[in-house]
Amino acid sequence: MKIESLQNKKVKEWSKLKEKKYRDETNTFIIEGEHLIEEAKKRGCIKETISMREEMDSDYIVTKEIMKKITSQVTLPNQIAICEKQKEHDPFGNILILDGIQDPGNLGTIIRSAVAFSYDTIILSEDSVDLYNEKVIRSTEGMIFHINIIRRNLQKELAKMKKLNYYIYGTNVVNGKKISDCQFHQKKAILIGNEGNGVKKELQNYFDETIYIPMNQQCESLNAAISASIIMYESESRK
Amino acid sequence: MKIESLQNKKVKEWSKLKEKKYRDETNTFIIEGEHLIEEAKKRGCIKETISMREEMDSDYIVTKEIMKKITSQVTLPNQIAICEKQKEHDPFGNILILDGIQDPGNLGTIIRSAVAFSYDTIILSEDSVDLYNEKVIRSTEGMIFHINIIRRNLQKELAKMKKLNYYIYGTNVVNGKKISDCQFHQKKAILIGNEGNGVKKELQNYFDETIYIPMNQQCESLNAAISASIIMYESESRK
Repeated sequence: MKIESLQNKKVKEWSKLKEKKYRDETNTFIIEGEHLIEEAKKRGCIKETISMREEMDSDYIVTKEIMKKITSQVTLPNQIAICEKQKEHDPFGNILILDGIQDPGNLGTIIRSAVAFSYDTIILSEDSVDLYNEKVIRSTEGMIFHINIIRRNLQKELAKMKKLNYYIYGTNVVNGKKISDCQFHQKKAILIGNEGNGVKKELQNYFDETIYIPMNQQCESLNAAISASIIMYESESRK
Repeated sequence: MKIESLQNKKVKEWSKLKEKKYRDETNTFIIEGEHLIEEAKKRGCIKETISMREEMDSDYIVTKEIMKKITSQVTLPNQIAICEKQKEHDPFGNILILDGIQDPGNLGTIIRSAVAFSYDTIILSEDSVDLYNEKVIRSTEGMIFHINIIRRNLQKELAKMKKLNYYIYGTNVVNGKKISDCQFHQKKAILIGNEGNGVKKELQNYFDETIYIPMNQQCESLNAAISASIIMYESESRK
């Protein structure tokens, strides 16, 4: 179907998806570009596709002005799609827990690494950045569709995981066991803290092992996505 | 000195430093926030400090409107400083070579990791993002002041390094030696490619060893900053 008016009801709905509030109300979000759409198709979660080009076999063909209104990218994408939010499943497999990650690029990059290193579940604390923020989605490079991501109260979730005999690995810049000396249990959960403040104090009580990544003293800490990725890499590469 | 007019010559000069052209002409750049200023002080490269608060012992005290004009941050920093660009030294020690990195956040994060994992020199290809881009600076978390970073023609530089008996490690997503099986030579240089296209073909001829990071097949590739950091981490942690 062709749409040419900026006042069209559909156009208004789509452009509101930039806001978290409206994504939550409709349980949908926008993805942009062919690679992401391809990955979403594998998952069967696309509701509608929108393009500026008739030949692209989209549900809606729109004008350049309409595409500009929907997307916030400077270079307009050939095709975008409205997706249903992912279903949330109870935690299983290798688990990564993120306590208060704020930077959308960091979260997206961590999701991409988590899939690369065969993690199955990511648990986000309630104060983390919104998973469906467009920058998060873009940085995942489509990997958001290949992993179970849930938002929970971490204290409750950690208590449950202890009962299920999960071994909790936490990070701490100051001390802990050198990561290359760590033996990773099969049932493992890795807990990564916020960019500035690390893991909240009340959650540190759940650590079975505190690990650290050795580094040059001139450097106080690594970027959160880098720490998370190195730990996930190490935990899987030395099995 | 107090400055209250947006038309002041100094204010005009400072606000132009957002552009690469003007940073190149004056050989200076802006840093924002106390942590970066502290790191720059250690290096002795600060020319002027600017603050909105009289008590902060800055060279210039400016109004909120002036600070808004100079910085592009939404939350105005307490203090900013004008720094001289870093001196460039010939490559030495552990070397990281970046072929066409485009994303400022990636470059900054790589610099931070390079210091953490005791790399001494970063060589940027001529088509890389500008080192003094404000987003690069911010993502380095001050580590830009603790490493030798130079911009060169990579083909010429690689030819020189071969003569100096450097061992060149390159990355390739498709094949190569599993990184955990690699023995890293003491004289090592790691070559990381562009976010989308990897290492340019003409540079791949210089590889002494092609390495890859094993990952789940659902994931095509890692973020460039993640790959670079994992390789630097591995090359130093298993010495």
